[in-house]
Amino acid sequence: MALVTLTTDFGTTDPFVGIMKGVLATRAPGAQVIDLTHGIPPQDVRAGALVLRQSAPWFPAGTIHVAVVDPGVGGKRRPICVATARACYVGPDNGVLSLAAEAEGIRAVVELTDPQFQLSPRSATFHGRDVFAPVAAALATGTAPDALGPAVTDMTRLPLPDPKRKGGELHGEVVYVDHFGNLVTNVSANALKGFSGAKLSVTIRATHVRGVATSYSSVHPGQMVAVVNSWELLEVAVRDGSARERLHSGVGEPVVVRVDRLG
Amino acid sequence: MALVTLTTDFGTTDPFVGIMKGVLATRAPGAQVIDLTHGIPPQDVRAGALVLRQSAPWFPAGTIHVAVVDPGVGGKRRPICVATARACYVGPDNGVLSLAAEAEGIRAVVELTDPQFQLSPRSATFHGRDVFAPVAAALATGTAPDALGPAVTDMTRLPLPDPKRKGGELHGEVVYVDHFGNLVTNVSANALKGFSGAKLSVTIRATHVRGVATSYSSVHPGQMVAVVNSWELLEVAVRDGSARERLHSGVGEPVVVRVDRLG
Amino acid sequence: MALVTLTTDFGTTDPFVGIMKGVLATRAPGAQVIDLTHGIPPQDVRAGALVLRQSAPWFPAGTIHVAVVDPGVGGKRRPICVATARACYVGPDNGVLSLAAEAEGIRAVVELTDPQFQLSPRSATFHGRDVFAPVAAALATGTAPDALGPAVTDMTRLPLPDPKRKGGELHGEVVYVDHFGNLVTNVSANALKGFSGAKLSVTIRATHVRGVATSYSSVHPGQMVAVVNSWELLEVAVRDGSARERLHSGVGEPVVVRVDRLG
Repeated sequence: MALVTLTTDFGTTDPFVGIMKGVLATRAPGAQVIDLTHGIPPQDVRAGALVLRQSAPWFPAGTIHVAVVDPGVGGKRRPICVATARACYVGPDNGVLSLAAEAEGIRAVVELTDPQFQLSPRSATFHGRDVFAPVAAALATGTAPDALGPAVTDMTRLPLPDPKRKGGELHGEVVYVDHFGNLVTNVSANALKGFSGAKLSVTIRATHVRGVATSYSSVHPGQMVAVVNSWELLEVAVRDGSARERLHSGVGEPVVVRVDRLG
Repeated sequence: MALVTLTTDFGTTDPFVGIMKGVLATRAPGAQVIDLTHGIPPQDVRAGALVLRQSAPWFPAGTIHVAVVDPGVGGKRRPICVATARACYVGPDNGVLSLAAEAEGIRAVVELTDPQFQLSPRSATFHGRDVFAPVAAALATGTAPDALGPAVTDMTRLPLPDPKRKGGELHGEVVYVDHFGNLVTNVSANALKGFSGAKLSVTIRATHVRGVATSYSSVHPGQMVAVVNSWELLEVAVRDGSARERLHSGVGEPVVVRVDRLG
Repeated sequence: MALVTLTTDFGTTDPFVGIMKGVLATRAPGAQVIDLTHGIPPQDVRAGALVLRQSAPWFPAGTIHVAVVDPGVGGKRRPICVATARACYVGPDNGVLSLAAEAEGIRAVVELTDPQFQLSPRSATFHGRDVFAPVAAALATGTAPDALGPAVTDMTRLPLPDPKRKGGELHGEVVYVDHFGNLVTNVSANALKGFSGAKLSVTIRATHVRGVATSYSSVHPGQMVAVVNSWELLEVAVRDGSARERLHSGVGEPVVVRVDRLG
């Protein structure tokens, strides 16, 4: 049974996601559909790309991932399908698919041009319903990606900013804030290995957090803590609280990691 | 495999929808359940009716649609099932089913009176669990609608307000606001055909939007745009922004369409 | 086909729940997954316990219930599985499983120690993904609970506060507030039977509500009403409105039930 995931900025108060599932149920009756999230901030392509990147590895090989964060819908941006070594990605060519697809090794990218795999007439405002859901249904029922349209050789990439080494410091930034108010940075567990054995401190908004703990419960409730989170990224949190609220901070906030001389 | 959709004003923070799914899983184990939305504003029967009307056409024939926006639960309003040419609708007789059912051609309406298809004892506060979910399960497992209770000949209707022609103008109103803050009006694509070929302007809260564009991306980010949306209704939007916030507007706001003399 | 329910405080804006479903789809491909709610207030173990207690009885025998409200993740709290007369419960040993499991009769409690049923490496911040989802998948595919680890004899209990009799009065409190703003108390229908035949009044925040009605629709829109709700608990509501907002009240608010001498 084919498995399709959905990631959008549609929210859950409107029936837009339900309508996409109706199209999938009509065209690929046996397919299983799983919501990753529909709470991507409106038009935030990078958040969508990051969420898809962090989620896709936990799904079975052969999963079809649909991501619709699509401020350019109805304009010149191309709808595409990206086939990788273990999955297919369907969505607009604005970078939302690129982080996840690149991590798996891209095998082919095609533009979704063949109208037989789309609804007709096609609206200019809701390609989730008219293009991406029916294309996912086609893939779920055995259509090969290269039947969907011509090859694309210049897919839009949307790399995450890399943290920068400056002397003994690593300068990164917050790239995602979750529901708990945890501030997720672009500093990976790998990048921290350069500091292996040293006692580190993390500075954000003039607040110094000493040490990188192994879990939230390493500190008392209400205290700030830096951890390497389940995405293998450095994160600043408040145990049983919200670092976003404590620090009045969000995406883009600079973060500095350094060896703590007082450690 | 039977397909059941759910539309409610229950929100997603409580387990009420999950409990309905438990009843469905108990009584119709193989049925597939799809959420349209549980974000209907509390007690807003018209929003529920509109959402169901716009969503049902995208589902396969034979789908069972359950809608529970039910301020009169436990009172005198009847629980009903409406069979149409292509689907079954289950919910309270307060109009929430009427827009969708009428668009498909109503074949039969019955009052849900037979207790064998409901839970016992039946609460007076949660008919989603005790009446509508088990009735949907009965339909999903092959019970005919007319077995559920006696015929109803005076189902409650809840028509959308029609836009009015006044001279060369069309006077409508906002009937729905989506998650993006797009203001959806009751002016249909059909109604606009009377102005075919003419350059139109749309006036809302003393703001004039010139032209009806084909997509949001016809304007620059931050600009206002009028489009015919995926529901075939005129909509006022701000590209990559919120028209609701820009105009401090919402459901009921008057909208005037006229030929733009300066166009 | 095995049935798994999920209850968390993860919210729906992040992909955490979707990732758990990816693990389940990978390890137990045929299992059906139903969300109870992911809107438990962050770290509110008691709300999670109450939601699970009220929901589980509506699911088929053999259902596997996963609940992750887990402020102590990565610390010393044990991950456990509780087998009852009709279901299995999986989650942290902090009380979140206890109300539901005790109501069904506990047959066995085990600590989740066997790494073969968990992901490896195991993060210290996301046991929903690394421990609880894969254990649920193991149960769904036929693993017996006692294969998961050693018996636990001192499971953490989290009883709801009992209402107290004081003279002719019953002193309880608000234990849950739902999406509609209805204030749910710990006064059960059973406890009210002691007042059978008498006219009651309910006092909350110096407001007296006379009588316990059978449904919201017993009063006019905008009026306050006390009802025995679908959880068989006394609830204070405002018809078509929010008692939480009207009374500026919430969880912990004292409620007094007494015979209404003026009744």
